[in-house]
Amino acid sequence: MDRRNFLKKVGVGTAAAAAATTVNAPYVWPKGKTYLWRMVTTWPPELPVLQTGAVRFAKRVEEMSEGRIKIEVYAGGELVPPLGTFDAVSQGTVECGSGASYYWAGKTPAAQWFSAVPFGLNAQGNNAWFYSGGGLQLWEEVYAPFNVVPRPQGNTGVQMGGWFNKKINTIDDYKGLKMRIPGLGGKVVAKAGGTVVLLAGGEIYTSLERGVIDATEWVGPLHDLRMGFYQAAKYYYYPGWHEPGTTLEVIFNKKAYDSLPKDLQAVIDAAAAETNLWSLCEFESQNGAALQTLVNEHKVQLVRFPDEVLKALRKLADETIEEEADKDPMARKVHEAFKAFKAKVGAWGTVSEGAYYNAIG
Amino acid sequence: MDRRNFLKKVGVGTAAAAAATTVNAPYVWPKGKTYLWRMVTTWPPELPVLQTGAVRFAKRVEEMSEGRIKIEVYAGGELVPPLGTFDAVSQGTVECGSGASYYWAGKTPAAQWFSAVPFGLNAQGNNAWFYSGGGLQLWEEVYAPFNVVPRPQGNTGVQMGGWFNKKINTIDDYKGLKMRIPGLGGKVVAKAGGTVVLLAGGEIYTSLERGVIDATEWVGPLHDLRMGFYQAAKYYYYPGWHEPGTTLEVIFNKKAYDSLPKDLQAVIDAAAAETNLWSLCEFESQNGAALQTLVNEHKVQLVRFPDEVLKALRKLADETIEEEADKDPMARKVHEAFKAFKAKVGAWGTVSEGAYYNAIG
Repeated sequence: MDRRNFLKKVGVGTAAAAAATTVNAPYVWPKGKTYLWRMVTTWPPELPVLQTGAVRFAKRVEEMSEGRIKIEVYAGGELVPPLGTFDAVSQGTVECGSGASYYWAGKTPAAQWFSAVPFGLNAQGNNAWFYSGGGLQLWEEVYAPFNVVPRPQGNTGVQMGGWFNKKINTIDDYKGLKMRIPGLGGKVVAKAGGTVVLLAGGEIYTSLERGVIDATEWVGPLHDLRMGFYQAAKYYYYPGWHEPGTTLEVIFNKKAYDSLPKDLQAVIDAAAAETNLWSLCEFESQNGAALQTLVNEHKVQLVRFPDEVLKALRKLADETIEEEADKDPMARKVHEAFKAFKAKVGAWGTVSEGAYYNAIG
Repeated sequence: MDRRNFLKKVGVGTAAAAAATTVNAPYVWPKGKTYLWRMVTTWPPELPVLQTGAVRFAKRVEEMSEGRIKIEVYAGGELVPPLGTFDAVSQGTVECGSGASYYWAGKTPAAQWFSAVPFGLNAQGNNAWFYSGGGLQLWEEVYAPFNVVPRPQGNTGVQMGGWFNKKINTIDDYKGLKMRIPGLGGKVVAKAGGTVVLLAGGEIYTSLERGVIDATEWVGPLHDLRMGFYQAAKYYYYPGWHEPGTTLEVIFNKKAYDSLPKDLQAVIDAAAAETNLWSLCEFESQNGAALQTLVNEHKVQLVRFPDEVLKALRKLADETIEEEADKDPMARKVHEAFKAFKAKVGAWGTVSEGAYYNAIG
């Protein structure tokens, strides 16, 4: 008996008063395929929430699909170099990858809007843009020429502003400041007169300790605590204006994604959304605990960027982003959409979350 | 060939360099059952995000399971009365339901902590508590005696404080104020000297217009705009201190949930989490648009509760919640866990989301 007749016979959708039924009919999954996939990531092995989130995603896909898709996850460098992730997925060397879209700014400048925009949307705003504001469709459009399909898979929440050995009292204090800060945030710091230094994760601590750099940003309390920065810097600044809600991505080779039956595409999409939510919850929960450790045990001095500095940085950020948008028609299109959505939810954020944080602060 | 041998033969987990494989082997889903379930909800038909979220959940479960679970959704009153949802699920009349836990305070006082706590956690904090802080396990414990399994299925975000025809300049302005405000928030208003009026949704507008009540809360811009309250009240207050991130639930009859194979349980859990995230995004996005309409087209006057009023309400809220916790050992246990988690993420919220909203406000 085919499924349509089967459902018809038990009368689904016809009789509201019919008894609910668990039917012991045999069911043969009709697609006749299993999928053995590989995922490469941009993250070091065991990196909390980021790499473990990619592994969690794969595990959930396997659980939900009863093993019809099995995804082997390789951390950065295990199969391809971390920043080779996008190419590997694009070329179909592997079926999927995990990273953050700003790593691919060199391929398409528009990619930068889908991870972190200085003074842009926070996690809640970014998610609303992706799922309910057309953001994900734009992201798909930006990756389409590369045969890559993106899905949000995580979010760090608001990051910290970074570790400083010099106080930032006015915007002029950025002049000559040697700081490790990548991406659009780095461009803003450079515009303020800072010297932006590029360093891999493993080199930051020593550079900070030896005074090769005056400051560095990383992620937030959970990851910063593990790096030991509190032993090498005096001040821990907030908020992370440069990364107010960084989105992490899972990306799929388009041919691989399209080859899946609809139910397994739905499974993958749901596992990505679930892991996206889970990762923000992990950051929220674990950052809270790590902050307590940093402040109570390690006596870290938390310092808020002065209002005047934030205002000046925001102006420089706006200029930087407009310049980036000018580089490419697709970047301009994405930026205009992002800006319009931000204006809409921003006003609401002021009277909802913003006002509430003020009330309980 | 059974699946274990099959996986062994293609060498999953052994050779990192092996080519990724799509295998055309036949696959027979081994569980031999399909499930036809019914869901009842506490919501009116077509109520945006709330009822439509329940319908979305059911649709996603069906898509992900390739129709192995089909859930027919009945709005409040279509099969059982809205507030009969919990009993219907508990008794197994239906397999699942959608609502909010504070509706079941009469059954178990501890239920109130899993929807909205005045001056409690916002959406991000509540989700972190549920998924990464032990909150969901406690919720399961609270519902277990009723044979009900809960999952978060939505979140309204910070609600609005309500529509007022009298200004609230000091806490004394609550004295004699006739307000429609249910739940713990209502208890706080009563403690401040207000007269709390219980009214069904359909009676609120007329009561406000005729002066039977001086004020009412509802949800947020999206839902309030549809109710037309801007035509019957002068001031639209914020923030919604009484419901700072109300969690919506999907609940399952335990026997029905346990009868599912593990893969379908995983599908259901993921669909609930995905819909939880989706609904917050819909609120964020649609509230933003509705607020623009209210302010720009209907010239609604937004008023922030004065700091002093919020402080006084918070004190009364703390007293109210302690009194509720004293009613029942399980409520006390849940409250203590909630309070500890809130202290941890609250400090982090101040330097992350809170400071960021300030920076962009």
